[in-house]
Amino acid sequence: MPVLNAIYTQSGGMTSVINASACGVIQAAAQHKSEIAKVLAGNNGILGVLQEDLIDTSKESIANIDALRRTPGGAFGSCRKKLPEVDITKLEYKRLLDVFVAHNIGFFFCNGGGDSQDTALKVSQVCASADYPMKSIGIPKTIDNDLLGTDNCPGFGSTAKYVATSVREASLDVASMYASSTRVFILEVMGRNSGWIAASSGLAAHEAGAPPQIILFPEVPFNKNNFLQKVSSTVAKDGYCVVVASEGIRFADGTFFTQNSGVVDSFGHVQLGGVAPSLAALVQEQHGFKVHWAVTDYLQRAARHISSSTDVRQAYAVGKVAVEMALSGENAIMVSIQRKSDQPYSWHLDKVPLAEVANVERQLPASYISADGYSITEAAKTYLLPLIEGEDYPAYKNGLPDYVKLNKIKVPKLLPDFNL
Amino acid sequence: MPVLNAIYTQSGGMTSVINASACGVIQAAAQHKSEIAKVLAGNNGILGVLQEDLIDTSKESIANIDALRRTPGGAFGSCRKKLPEVDITKLEYKRLLDVFVAHNIGFFFCNGGGDSQDTALKVSQVCASADYPMKSIGIPKTIDNDLLGTDNCPGFGSTAKYVATSVREASLDVASMYASSTRVFILEVMGRNSGWIAASSGLAAHEAGAPPQIILFPEVPFNKNNFLQKVSSTVAKDGYCVVVASEGIRFADGTFFTQNSGVVDSFGHVQLGGVAPSLAALVQEQHGFKVHWAVTDYLQRAARHISSSTDVRQAYAVGKVAVEMALSGENAIMVSIQRKSDQPYSWHLDKVPLAEVANVERQLPASYISADGYSITEAAKTYLLPLIEGEDYPAYKNGLPDYVKLNKIKVPKLLPDFNL
Repeated sequence: MPVLNAIYTQSGGMTSVINASACGVIQAAAQHKSEIAKVLAGNNGILGVLQEDLIDTSKESIANIDALRRTPGGAFGSCRKKLPEVDITKLEYKRLLDVFVAHNIGFFFCNGGGDSQDTALKVSQVCASADYPMKSIGIPKTIDNDLLGTDNCPGFGSTAKYVATSVREASLDVASMYASSTRVFILEVMGRNSGWIAASSGLAAHEAGAPPQIILFPEVPFNKNNFLQKVSSTVAKDGYCVVVASEGIRFADGTFFTQNSGVVDSFGHVQLGGVAPSLAALVQEQHGFKVHWAVTDYLQRAARHISSSTDVRQAYAVGKVAVEMALSGENAIMVSIQRKSDQPYSWHLDKVPLAEVANVERQLPASYISADGYSITEAAKTYLLPLIEGEDYPAYKNGLPDYVKLNKIKVPKLLPDFNL
Repeated sequence: MPVLNAIYTQSGGMTSVINASACGVIQAAAQHKSEIAKVLAGNNGILGVLQEDLIDTSKESIANIDALRRTPGGAFGSCRKKLPEVDITKLEYKRLLDVFVAHNIGFFFCNGGGDSQDTALKVSQVCASADYPMKSIGIPKTIDNDLLGTDNCPGFGSTAKYVATSVREASLDVASMYASSTRVFILEVMGRNSGWIAASSGLAAHEAGAPPQIILFPEVPFNKNNFLQKVSSTVAKDGYCVVVASEGIRFADGTFFTQNSGVVDSFGHVQLGGVAPSLAALVQEQHGFKVHWAVTDYLQRAARHISSSTDVRQAYAVGKVAVEMALSGENAIMVSIQRKSDQPYSWHLDKVPLAEVANVERQLPASYISADGYSITEAAKTYLLPLIEGEDYPAYKNGLPDYVKLNKIKVPKLLPDFNL
């Protein structure tokens, strides 16, 4: 059997630990040189594969590959490209097969969330249709923690640790100032359709009733009057109120809060995004409280400086095991994390068919949300806690994290150009 | 001479290290029990002093006081109360003197920025007018770094480290995604009248031209067309553009950007605050680029998890030395940090008359801003770098920083109530 190459792609939104998975793939493959000659990375994910724009990871120094373990963002670039329905006669699929043949590819690793597992699935399907021998494996990754078939998703634990830490810290600030200044602080976090990240902020409360006093989940219909009442009763009781709001909160009719908040820009357009400033305007207008708000956006998914060591370990492991599963003959599966026990936390890696995880989203279970809809239950805390455990600090240089920048040496092109 | 007590107050906006100064004051006083019996803390700053609402710090455990060194926010509460012009016949000043007499106060420490040094100054003046023996000492603190008479201000170095780290991390995220997604990322930072925090983001660039490619300072008049041009030329060159904007950016006529951005809320009011979303709307409308934005607000001044060790050391030292200076007979001065050399960084503590620092603000020197107004110079980097050096991690428990909550045992009241 000729020695084959592997393609690795990063896909969808970034996390602080997706490069740890890349590191796991590359270092595991290096242990099996007789079966995988080289790991080629798609430059900007599947887009780079289609364009035959491939990075030769074997040209990077061992130290650079090792430093991926502590570097956030996607070192090889990512994209949000969705492949069409599988049809071997379509240009995109013909092209993919041409690239696979030209570069002697026998392994395809796609590192991403639900949409990205769809890519891994379609690659496995088109290769099967074409009788092209390929092991296509999904590697889980998403800060949204919304993949099915896995107990949790690499990337989420670090975002959860960042959000819970930030809420604990900002709450101390608000608690210091409320007597004569800010009464309400609102933090907007990611989570378009699921409240996992918002839920993680509940870990900031070291005792019942401690901030955040209000968490707004996409899973719980937003009720303006009820929310305003909860804010004012909290301020009456505690003196101040910390609110964590998911970007995806929506009204009972399904419309997003930001679509319907009434805030319009200078051109008369409804302003999408900006749940926190819209909620702040609402509270200020209705209650007259001084309000501060924050939106962490990309910071929450890039904050490698406060990644959880559980998360870093798991991100590395899913990359490494993806290679080992491919070599053992697995195909069309995603590596999954299975929890064995909460306390002490233990887990192992397993697999789940790609067809079961592609294009589906897992919401927060009802049992994780308190009866009033504004906080998390003990069951949620039991689930979340191990995922934020442990610190895995990056190296620092000149006062800042010392992240690696790869050389990204390209593989010589063998095919004509391809216009997407 | 009877043994006297001291009052310590926290004042103005919080920082991640103001409690380290409190720790310095309390631990230094404990070394001089024959001269300072107790340190009483005003609950919520000078407001607590006026209301005879005082916390007996001697009732806290040694471990709790020690933990202040690593706890953000203001453990004793703060306020933004401005004392009136000094006049011994005014009710507020009579009250202050009554409280000083009742609790045998001989030392007054006010920990804050320019407005707070005004409080320390006025306390020294009213005591002098009343022939009341008092040593009133200012302890510098502000993330804005805008106090005169000191090389830098405790609190700033940690915010600078947080901002530069966050920009470096988010930039890696944008760099991974721009090929098919977000082209422009905008981070809003604090700094109403001075660009010190915005400037610190320039440290994120590990080489010339690296992100952030655009920094917007309050000191540089905002020119909409020039800014838009700079964004598009940066995207053309680098593929993406990271913008850091001070909340205080303003047009040449002095009006704040947010006053004049054209963004109005649902009630037709001009929306103040929210430079980042307004800039994002502008770029999106004019260029059609996909834009993401973040506003860190309180997070940037509470992020003890990434405080600089230089900053923590200095914050502790200014508290400790304030006590030592008071005991050596100093009055009406603020402790100041003087730099001896940049590299290796060395500094010592000195003093500056309160009259010279109260109510004044120090802007970024012109020599720290590049000719085009969009980045910082080497001189700025030389100044800023030592302030973010070193990590001083808090202890962690259950995956989160383990911050202390004091018991705040109150001193029994001896005076009638006082209505503010």
